[in-house]
Amino acid sequence: MPLLECVPNVSEGRRPEVVARLVAAVTSVPGVRLLDVSSDPDHNRSVLTLVGEAGDLRAGLLALYEAALREIDLTRHQGVHPRVGAVDVVPFVPLGDTPMKEAVMAAEALASEVAERFSLPVYLYERAARRPESCRLADIRRGGFEGFPAKMADPAWAPDFGPARVHPTAGVTVIGARFFLIAFNVVLETADVAVAKTIARKVRESGGGLPAVRAMGVYLESRGRAQVSMNLVDFRQTSVLTAFNRVREEAEALGTQVLESELIGLMPEEAAMGVVAEALKLPEFKMDRIVFGQA
Amino acid sequence: MPLLECVPNVSEGRRPEVVARLVAAVTSVPGVRLLDVSSDPDHNRSVLTLVGEAGDLRAGLLALYEAALREIDLTRHQGVHPRVGAVDVVPFVPLGDTPMKEAVMAAEALASEVAERFSLPVYLYERAARRPESCRLADIRRGGFEGFPAKMADPAWAPDFGPARVHPTAGVTVIGARFFLIAFNVVLETADVAVAKTIARKVRESGGGLPAVRAMGVYLESRGRAQVSMNLVDFRQTSVLTAFNRVREEAEALGTQVLESELIGLMPEEAAMGVVAEALKLPEFKMDRIVFGQA
Repeated sequence: MPLLECVPNVSEGRRPEVVARLVAAVTSVPGVRLLDVSSDPDHNRSVLTLVGEAGDLRAGLLALYEAALREIDLTRHQGVHPRVGAVDVVPFVPLGDTPMKEAVMAAEALASEVAERFSLPVYLYERAARRPESCRLADIRRGGFEGFPAKMADPAWAPDFGPARVHPTAGVTVIGARFFLIAFNVVLETADVAVAKTIARKVRESGGGLPAVRAMGVYLESRGRAQVSMNLVDFRQTSVLTAFNRVREEAEALGTQVLESELIGLMPEEAAMGVVAEALKLPEFKMDRIVFGQA
Repeated sequence: MPLLECVPNVSEGRRPEVVARLVAAVTSVPGVRLLDVSSDPDHNRSVLTLVGEAGDLRAGLLALYEAALREIDLTRHQGVHPRVGAVDVVPFVPLGDTPMKEAVMAAEALASEVAERFSLPVYLYERAARRPESCRLADIRRGGFEGFPAKMADPAWAPDFGPARVHPTAGVTVIGARFFLIAFNVVLETADVAVAKTIARKVRESGGGLPAVRAMGVYLESRGRAQVSMNLVDFRQTSVLTAFNRVREEAEALGTQVLESELIGLMPEEAAMGVVAEALKLPEFKMDRIVFGQA
C-alpha cells in the first residue's frame, strides 16, 4: 500500500495538555504512526509528523479536526507564526515510491469530508491546488485569521470546499500535497527581530537568496531571542548545512551570533547523510558507513 | 551471543584481485559479515570491517592469514603507512553491550592459533597487551618490517606467541582488543608532505593538540597530494567534525586548503548523528529524526 507522510500544523503550542489530547485523537486510529511532535510556545503552534496509508490518515485527521475545533478558539489565539485556522495547514507528502497523485487524492478526500462534517471552509494548496492563486501557502495565509472575512468577500478567494464563511473559532483550513520539506529554525543571540527579518530577506529565494529556501524572522518572547524560521523545500538545491552557514554568516555580518538551531519534525535520510558529507568534505556518506547502536 | 567487530589491516592496497581473494577467504566462513573494505594504493593497505561472533571471526581470520601469507611478500612491499606484517594488525572491538573481556579473549585465542599454525610471531596490543611496552601499536610498529629482526634481538621485544624469528615474507602480526576507533583522513591541496606532518604534530594529542587524536602526515603519490591520516580513539572527547575543522584551520594557516576527506571503515551511529548536531548547532540529533529511504 502506498505510504504517505502527513504533517498537520495546529494552532496550539502553549497548553501541553491540549496538545496531548490532539495527539491522542489522531493516534486513536490504528495504522496512524506518530513520528514526532514539535510544539513551540512563541509560534503557539504544534507540528505533528504522521505516517500511514491514506485511509488511516484520513480517519485520524478527522479525529484531530474534531478535537481541535473543540479545544482551540482562534479569537483568543496569539502567536508569532501566521495562521488562518485551528487546524492551520495539513500537507500530505508521498513517501518512498508513492506517486504525488496519491497525496493529491488524500488531500482532496480529506478536504471534502472536513468541509461537510465541520462546516469549515477548505483551501487546497501546492500540488493539490485548483487555481494558481492558491498554490502558495503564503498567499492563502496572507491577512491571517483576523483578515480572512474581508479576504473571502472577494469571489476570487471563495474556498475550494465548504461554506464561504469563516468559522467563528476555527477560521479556515488549508489542505494540500507537496514534496518533503525540512522545517529548520535558527535562534540568534540577539533579541532584535529586525535582524532576523533582515537575514530572512537575504537568505530566502524570493529575495534573491538561496534556491528553494523560504524564511521569515520572528521574535521568541519566551526566550527573549530573534529567530530565522525556514522551510527548505528542496534540500538537494540548498542543503540544511548551506542554509545554516548562510544564516550564520549574515548574523555575524550584522554583529550577532547563532545561539542554536532546531529541526521541526523530521529530515530525510539523504539530507542527514548529506550534512555529514558536506561538513566533513567527504565525497559521499551513506547509512551503510554507520555502525548502529554502537557507543 | 556477544558480537564483536574485527578490523584486520592487511598490507595490500594496490592489487584489487589480491584484495578480492583475501576478502573471499575471510567471508568464506558463514557468520562473518563484511561491512566495508577500504583500500588505498599509497598506503598500500586495505582495511576490512567485519562483524560476527568470536568463533566465526576466528575461523574467518585464520583463512585470511592463510591467504595473505600466500599472496603478500613484504620484502617487495612499499607504502607510506607503517607496517610490520602481511596481516599487519587485527583489532577486536566489543559491539553494543559486549564486554571488553570478550574482545581480549578473542584476540588471545586467535594469537595462539596463528602463531602455531603459521609459525608467525604475534604481539598482543592495547587492551590485550601483556606488558606495558606493547600497549601502544605505534611502539610495536616502530622500525617497521625492515627493522624488526634487530628489534626482536632485544629480549624485551620477544613476541607474546610464536617463534622469536621474523617470518621472511610475512613479518610479524599484531593482534589486540580496543574500543571503537574512527579512522579519518584529510587530503590537502598541497603536495608538500612537510605541511601534512606539521599539521599532524599540531592536532595530535601527543603533541599537545586534540585529546584522543592520533595523526601522521603522509604523501599520496597516486594523487600528488599530502594527507593528514588520523585515528580518533574516543569521538566523545574529540568529534570527527572538531578534528576536521582543526585540520582545516591549520591547513589554512599554512597557506593550503582541504581538498577532501575520507572515512576508513565505519563510524558509530552516535558519532555520525553528533556531526549533524554539531554542524547545525542542534542541541541534539538522533536517528529517530530521520525518515529512512525518503528522497
